[in-house]
Amino acid sequence: MVVKSELKLIKSLQQKKCRIEHGLFVIEGKKTLEEVVKSQMRPYKLFAVDPSNLDIGGHEVTQVGARELSQMSSLKNPNGYLGVFYIPEKVEKIASDWVLVLDGVQDPGNLGTIIRLCDWFGINDIVCSNDTVDCYNPKVLQATMGSITRVNIQYRSLSTFLGSTELPIYGTFMDGDNVNTITLPKKGILIMGNEGKGVSSTVAELCTDRLAIPQFGEQTTESLNVASATAILLHEIRK
Amino acid sequence: MVVKSELKLIKSLQQKKCRIEHGLFVIEGKKTLEEVVKSQMRPYKLFAVDPSNLDIGGHEVTQVGARELSQMSSLKNPNGYLGVFYIPEKVEKIASDWVLVLDGVQDPGNLGTIIRLCDWFGINDIVCSNDTVDCYNPKVLQATMGSITRVNIQYRSLSTFLGSTELPIYGTFMDGDNVNTITLPKKGILIMGNEGKGVSSTVAELCTDRLAIPQFGEQTTESLNVASATAILLHEIRK
Repeated sequence: MVVKSELKLIKSLQQKKCRIEHGLFVIEGKKTLEEVVKSQMRPYKLFAVDPSNLDIGGHEVTQVGARELSQMSSLKNPNGYLGVFYIPEKVEKIASDWVLVLDGVQDPGNLGTIIRLCDWFGINDIVCSNDTVDCYNPKVLQATMGSITRVNIQYRSLSTFLGSTELPIYGTFMDGDNVNTITLPKKGILIMGNEGKGVSSTVAELCTDRLAIPQFGEQTTESLNVASATAILLHEIRK
Repeated sequence: MVVKSELKLIKSLQQKKCRIEHGLFVIEGKKTLEEVVKSQMRPYKLFAVDPSNLDIGGHEVTQVGARELSQMSSLKNPNGYLGVFYIPEKVEKIASDWVLVLDGVQDPGNLGTIIRLCDWFGINDIVCSNDTVDCYNPKVLQATMGSITRVNIQYRSLSTFLGSTELPIYGTFMDGDNVNTITLPKKGILIMGNEGKGVSSTVAELCTDRLAIPQFGEQTTESLNVASATAILLHEIRK
């Protein structure tokens, strides 16, 4: 049994302003929930239709009915498990050799896929412009599959961040230099731009190098999806 | 003005069985619609809230109200343009040097992204197992951004197709050989598997080579998203 006010609070966390106000976010799904509980993320409350199925150590789980769960869930078809967690404190320190910078990425699925890619390729730090989609958005979290616990994501002014670094700054542009002909250094910053508009002009001016992924055959498709392009460039960085 | 029976027909095309029954599918959005009309795809009927904005040569466009359009649309927020097209006839011939084979890919967004990748990298042929998501699914078409007109997509038994080819068959597996250490030939078949289960055992037996994309750092993430992995492998094939 969950009280009405709590159902309302949890439902409200689908909106960014409510997540910020309460400092909480929601994870759904058994596997991701188990992964996040085992990380350093601090649970506020956990709910399950069948708690006995959940492998999460000593944490308390509230049993709920399927109807109650669907009232809290952001999914069309809730899957029986939902956890509310505290948004971790901001860490401004950069720990990884390469940093991925996102300049206005809007699609939650793209951000989720990019976080998962960073986890795969050992990129610990993502720095997002303030207008990039929120990483605690339910659709982002659905696409990250637990990788959110292993990648440090910051939101800040890119001009300030890029203005204060000594690292080479690689921007991605349609007319940049062919990545296949370039030797990438051991440390650096890679910038991926907005789905439609690419890297903004303010940020473009701060780039020390311009990269492109060569197209093959006729010039027909307009562009690669930003998550596909990130996959290829992180693979090149790690080769 | 659109008659009720036609609204009902178009709405029904969101389902695969109705698309097959009528041999029709739906494209939404101004830019994609303009691109598809200019291709070899044959329009059945085109609708727009404001036809004067549409650049589609001599084709007839029916003006509709926003409410009528939303009754036909599969989108939460329809964008004012909708076209119904004839599903093209099957072409079983293989025209490209490399062929991408999809073994049970389920997510429409993944298939859409993969079609767009094939267009970018000049892979003309995709052969899908019969249990791969339908390429005329509205969510697939939303992610392809018009690339559907430039890539030939076939659905057939993979055992039959792979059993009859002389080309080397590269399957993608978690424990395959590091793609960075392999020289890929000029012609071949690349197989990508289902999101959760990977390449099926029947298909795995027909592979002549096994590929993997190396992970960097700790073995934490379970796997790369299938569209991300396809991006990296097609990039390697075309280098």
